[in-house]
Amino acid sequence: MNVIELKSTEKNELIDITSKIAELVNLYKPNASTLLIYIPHTTAGITINECYDSAVSYDILSAMNTIAPSNKNYRHMEGNSDGHIKTVLFGNQVLIPICDGKLMLGKWQGIFFCESDGPRNRKVYVQFLKVETEIKNPRSFKECLIKS
Amino acid sequence: MNVIELKSTEKNELIDITSKIAELVNLYKPNASTLLIYIPHTTAGITINECYDSAVSYDILSAMNTIAPSNKNYRHMEGNSDGHIKTVLFGNQVLIPICDGKLMLGKWQGIFFCESDGPRNRKVYVQFLKVETEIKNPRSFKECLIKS
Amino acid sequence: MNVIELKSTEKNELIDITSKIAELVNLYKPNASTLLIYIPHTTAGITINECYDSAVSYDILSAMNTIAPSNKNYRHMEGNSDGHIKTVLFGNQVLIPICDGKLMLGKWQGIFFCESDGPRNRKVYVQFLKVETEIKNPRSFKECLIKS
Repeated sequence: MNVIELKSTEKNELIDITSKIAELVNLYKPNASTLLIYIPHTTAGITINECYDSAVSYDILSAMNTIAPSNKNYRHMEGNSDGHIKTVLFGNQVLIPICDGKLMLGKWQGIFFCESDGPRNRKVYVQFLKVETEIKNPRSFKECLIKS
Repeated sequence: MNVIELKSTEKNELIDITSKIAELVNLYKPNASTLLIYIPHTTAGITINECYDSAVSYDILSAMNTIAPSNKNYRHMEGNSDGHIKTVLFGNQVLIPICDGKLMLGKWQGIFFCESDGPRNRKVYVQFLKVETEIKNPRSFKECLIKS
Repeated sequence: MNVIELKSTEKNELIDITSKIAELVNLYKPNASTLLIYIPHTTAGITINECYDSAVSYDILSAMNTIAPSNKNYRHMEGNSDGHIKTVLFGNQVLIPICDGKLMLGKWQGIFFCESDGPRNRKVYVQFLKVETEIKNPRSFKECLIKS
């Protein structure tokens, strides 16, 4: 398993880790695989969304703050219940297909580490999963493209 | 990797793609596997929920519109921040176990493509992941059924 | 595939199933793998979050009840639309890396079955996915630890 270490600098922050993940994929160069990114924390998650206009990250963080404001009267006394709630909503893992050695992110997609109780030192676990390649495919790729 | 092409017709829409996915599973007939469905977009996601009463989809879309109304004053200027936020909440991937060649969806479960900025032409990526079958199971399936 | 049976006792409840999952991992003792937990229901999901202070679960359930109150005027007539909405937000599957036979949960992480329409008899599916182990790693683990 591979570990990436991060240092967040804000309480709430979407940190673009796409290039770090691409670096790892380039290191192993798996032909066909699926990449698992797993966050071992309870107040930080991971999501995939637009990485070109940083205003998108701002709007996502704002929406999360509306759902889970930091100053609400929570039962958990450590002052970071908002971070736990946001992490449940972000999720703490993503999978991305790898095809012909290429991470199959969509055109506008980037991978964001979702800090919700920073600043902290954080870890990101990365695994490569095996895909079925020996399945006899009775049709060509083109035929497998199912149009509706 | 397999690609399914879709055409959404509404701004916000849950499109039931269960039969298309079942068609693909039937094409490959893997014995034991896990199906990965990955959406390469930033304003469309995927979820698994009830597919029998369409009122459930209506209620899910309504809840998403309450969390991320389209007419709010967002920073991202393309007019689709609500779609980005909803996609973070839906998530952009799901996994479904395949056992004895059968997609292990629960009785009421269907697979929904979650359009949040349509109408658009969209893609759905599908991969089959390998599962551990050669692990020596020291107990029978029945014994592995852990009751609480 | 492995099945765990559960009995929930509340309408909304986070049930800690970490020890049951650990029992299953101990039964198979895979060296390197990824564990998939899949919930085959439409009003129950799964999440990973803090399992030490039960006040965290309370705050998470409260936030979900604010997003999807049970007494709202929903279109779905079975009285459990709130449970469907919450399940979309929780998600119905998680993956956890296994490394050297050990479930790589973070220090504060526990695995929670998210009941949103109980009390009910429920099922949890568990699969072990194969990871790439034969990939030639050109650097040692330490070098693969990418610091930012």
